Amino acid sequence: MTRLAIIGLGLIGGSLARALRAAGQVSHIRAYDPDPRQGRTGLEQGVIDEFANSADAAASSADLVVMAVPVLHTAEAARALRPGLSKTAVLTDVGSTKVSVMADLTREFGELPPRFVAAHPIAGTEKSGVAASRGELFRGHRVVLTPHPQQDPDALATVEAMWSSVGARVVQMAPDCHDAIFAATSHLPHVLAYAFVDMLTHLPNADDIFSNAGGGFRDFTRIASSSPEMWHDIVRANRGEVAGLLERQIGELHELLDLMRSEDWPALKLRFARARAARERYLPHIE
Amino acid sequence: MTRLAIIGLGLIGGSLARALRAAGQVSHIRAYDPDPRQGRTGLEQGVIDEFANSADAAASSADLVVMAVPVLHTAEAARALRPGLSKTAVLTDVGSTKVSVMADLTREFGELPPRFVAAHPIAGTEKSGVAASRGELFRGHRVVLTPHPQQDPDALATVEAMWSSVGARVVQMAPDCHDAIFAATSHLPHVLAYAFVDMLTHLPNADDIFSNAGGGFRDFTRIASSSPEMWHDIVRANRGEVAGLLERQIGELHELLDLMRSEDWPALKLRFARARAARERYLPHIE
Repeated sequence: MTRLAIIGLGLIGGSLARALRAAGQVSHIRAYDPDPRQGRTGLEQGVIDEFANSADAAASSADLVVMAVPVLHTAEAARALRPGLSKTAVLTDVGSTKVSVMADLTREFGELPPRFVAAHPIAGTEKSGVAASRGELFRGHRVVLTPHPQQDPDALATVEAMWSSVGARVVQMAPDCHDAIFAATSHLPHVLAYAFVDMLTHLPNADDIFSNAGGGFRDFTRIASSSPEMWHDIVRANRGEVAGLLERQIGELHELLDLMRSEDWPALKLRFARARAARERYLPHIE
Repeated sequence: MTRLAIIGLGLIGGSLARALRAAGQVSHIRAYDPDPRQGRTGLEQGVIDEFANSADAAASSADLVVMAVPVLHTAEAARALRPGLSKTAVLTDVGSTKVSVMADLTREFGELPPRFVAAHPIAGTEKSGVAASRGELFRGHRVVLTPHPQQDPDALATVEAMWSSVGARVVQMAPDCHDAIFAATSHLPHVLAYAFVDMLTHLPNADDIFSNAGGGFRDFTRIASSSPEMWHDIVRANRGEVAGLLERQIGELHELLDLMRSEDWPALKLRFARARAARERYLPHIE
């Protein structure tokens, strides 16, 4: 039975703690978060057994240490927990970018620790904090692992087993492929959703607009309710990929605007139809 | 008890037929659609009592005639049903644009018929066709009426009562205000969602991207599965408003790209936070 440490007790850390407890995979869960309210909620709701005063205290005597912090806090979290980390412990993360996380770990440890496994669960909601956590969050979803050349196979197997035990499907990918793919499926959509809502707030009839929004609007903008801190970190950590795609998206929108201005309606309809066909073709794969 | 005619038996026409039948508001439902498969499905599923061979045959002897066609087919539908329309019948529509629909009716009838009531139910899904229709579609949703100066108050009351009977909340608005508001809440988001998916289809790693899409992507792009024909019509009918907002959105995205390129991360985070705050503030109003 595993002694688990969660560094960063939010939606993902809390959901993982709940899920591993429900799966009977852990004997003890200790957490650290800079916000003591997360600790209180976590203890009250039985998500964790113990709330530590520091990251290294949380990590000490743990077999498995999960960093569940905004990606730009990875280096700081790794540095803080390191004094408590036992030689045999497996260290992993849940960050939405993998190149930056692995670079941060390399910098902090001098090289990538063999028992560090980079991971990204493709699950979440627009909500934040341990109060929003739920044990079923990962069931049926993918988790991407991006192993590195120094990787200890036993540590990799441990993290793979951890995610499988909570109902996730584990896949492996190179870190740069991961970042290119998730810039497109996740990071850019968040930027576009935030940008759309922000643009509306500046319109003179903003009040009427928001008051008349319906279901299409609600779903299209759901991710604009996500944590600005967390998404700032992700976009910044993956800025090259995100900026490149944003530039392409601006280009596409210019083309659509030109089609409207020149009244080339068949071409506009063709774009709509092409997009719909692509989405419908891939829909069965979307989790 | 009302004899109802539905011109255009799709998601909205079918859902309204189901809802009015369930509410006990109609004695007979006759429909016309250029696609005979919609008629067969509608008869098989008991959505309608009779499928007519033409719009005017459907409208004849009806007390209430609802045009539920893509907005650019409004003029054609009005022209086709007119020979069957009785002097006492109330005519209404469900179009997502109101200025164009009222202009089309004016052109077809010489002036806006007093017993024509322009209406737009703020409800729908990305699905199309009568097979996707459901009687609960309008419950708890708004319906916007845009009355005109020649409006017969009795006809207005009939259409208001019809929508109330299926659980909708009826509000009134000027047609140009309607078109400006729904360009922002609905028409532009559809263009942005189509444009985003279309952009992705051109990337060399498109297959990997779509295969790794998660819940955020699914919701953000849901409306890109909507009917291209219908949304082509709406964007074209409301092109002035939609193009103006699209230009603003491009401007906003340029600003975000500049913030990324110049690494002004606090300013980027501020935009994200502002968008989130606006969405959260209005969320209780979103239907």
